[in-house]
Amino acid sequence: MVDRINVIGSGRVGSAVAARLRERGLAVGADAPELVLLCVPDGAIADVAASVEPGPWVAHVSGATPLAALAPHARRFSMHPLQTFSLARGPEQLDGAWGAVCAETDDARAAGRWLAETLGLEPFDLDDSARTLYHAGAVFVSNYLVTLHRAASLLFESAGAPPEALEPLIRGTIDNGYELTGPISRGDWTTVEAHRAEIHEARPELDDLYETLAGATAAIAT
Amino acid sequence: MVDRINVIGSGRVGSAVAARLRERGLAVGADAPELVLLCVPDGAIADVAASVEPGPWVAHVSGATPLAALAPHARRFSMHPLQTFSLARGPEQLDGAWGAVCAETDDARAAGRWLAETLGLEPFDLDDSARTLYHAGAVFVSNYLVTLHRAASLLFESAGAPPEALEPLIRGTIDNGYELTGPISRGDWTTVEAHRAEIHEARPELDDLYETLAGATAAIAT
Repeated sequence: MVDRINVIGSGRVGSAVAARLRERGLAVGADAPELVLLCVPDGAIADVAASVEPGPWVAHVSGATPLAALAPHARRFSMHPLQTFSLARGPEQLDGAWGAVCAETDDARAAGRWLAETLGLEPFDLDDSARTLYHAGAVFVSNYLVTLHRAASLLFESAGAPPEALEPLIRGTIDNGYELTGPISRGDWTTVEAHRAEIHEARPELDDLYETLAGATAAIAT
Repeated sequence: MVDRINVIGSGRVGSAVAARLRERGLAVGADAPELVLLCVPDGAIADVAASVEPGPWVAHVSGATPLAALAPHARRFSMHPLQTFSLARGPEQLDGAWGAVCAETDDARAAGRWLAETLGLEPFDLDDSARTLYHAGAVFVSNYLVTLHRAASLLFESAGAPPEALEPLIRGTIDNGYELTGPISRGDWTTVEAHRAEIHEARPELDDLYETLAGATAAIAT
């Protein structure tokens, strides 16, 4: 569908994306690109888009930024790889992840899905007006998992237990299809109360977090 | 060290443990056991322990319950498999997980470590007085991960995005060593504010959870 792509930006996403496109044999950075792919910080998208000569497809890879930021371009779409990227790893980070395609025309949707598939992503359509909720959902399981892991590591350190022991437990929770076990699933509020008291003693900075999560677990996860 | 084990309880943990012990060629349920292993609900441990004739090792597999619940037995320990178990799966759930050994004597510690290793667990020592903090840490990454996944799934449903797309993102977050990415790591509070507003509109039951997690992420994960 497209052979010549200009990838602008070489951060976490841009470097993985450009490497994958090269692996696929596409001409990355060639003259007269058919697609200009903006992998720049969200706040820079509008300025960089405005600086691109109209003609080629212009797209961004942001989860949070609306298509309107790509003005004045009419041939536009966005394709957000639903993954967290590290500069320490390469294009294999894309494998198996999904890609959210926002488009206003059938042609744009086809271009977005082509890009996702070429990168090794499973494409799905997302309404431009729904992207903030979608992005908030992604933040819950990615960024906030980091926070849970950090909180648990602090408690393990206080208890003299090895934080690396947490990892098989996290993977087991996923492998078991997010089936709720533990004190709240059993209605064992005595144990929850004991957690509260000990956390307050040892790590009071986690009081609110534990309390809010316990309440939310009882409300939405049981 | 031990050949004859009586496993009491056939719930999530007891059934996986008994199956693994049988796989290892041990006599499970034989007469004159050398170890009586209580895999019963936390609230039943003291009563069941009191009903066991003194003599053999008596142990429990609870994370939250102190050794004192094993009275009147002096030859006692606990070994908590740090994993979440599903009845839909077998003893392979133990593979690669860690086991917390609480013991009051060298002999008891050796027995606890032997049990962990026999089950396929990596043993570590835990002080009986530290187990509540330890258990609270486990709840954070296991039970509360279920809650994050549920919250994210609700937001994806509201956005018309497929919840199954969350899974590679969760695994990617682990694979990248819990490196924080996303708006909070970038100090992008405009995006956080947009999340807040849309969540309040679409899923107000998640308001507090999002807010508390955003604050905790800024405080402990950045």
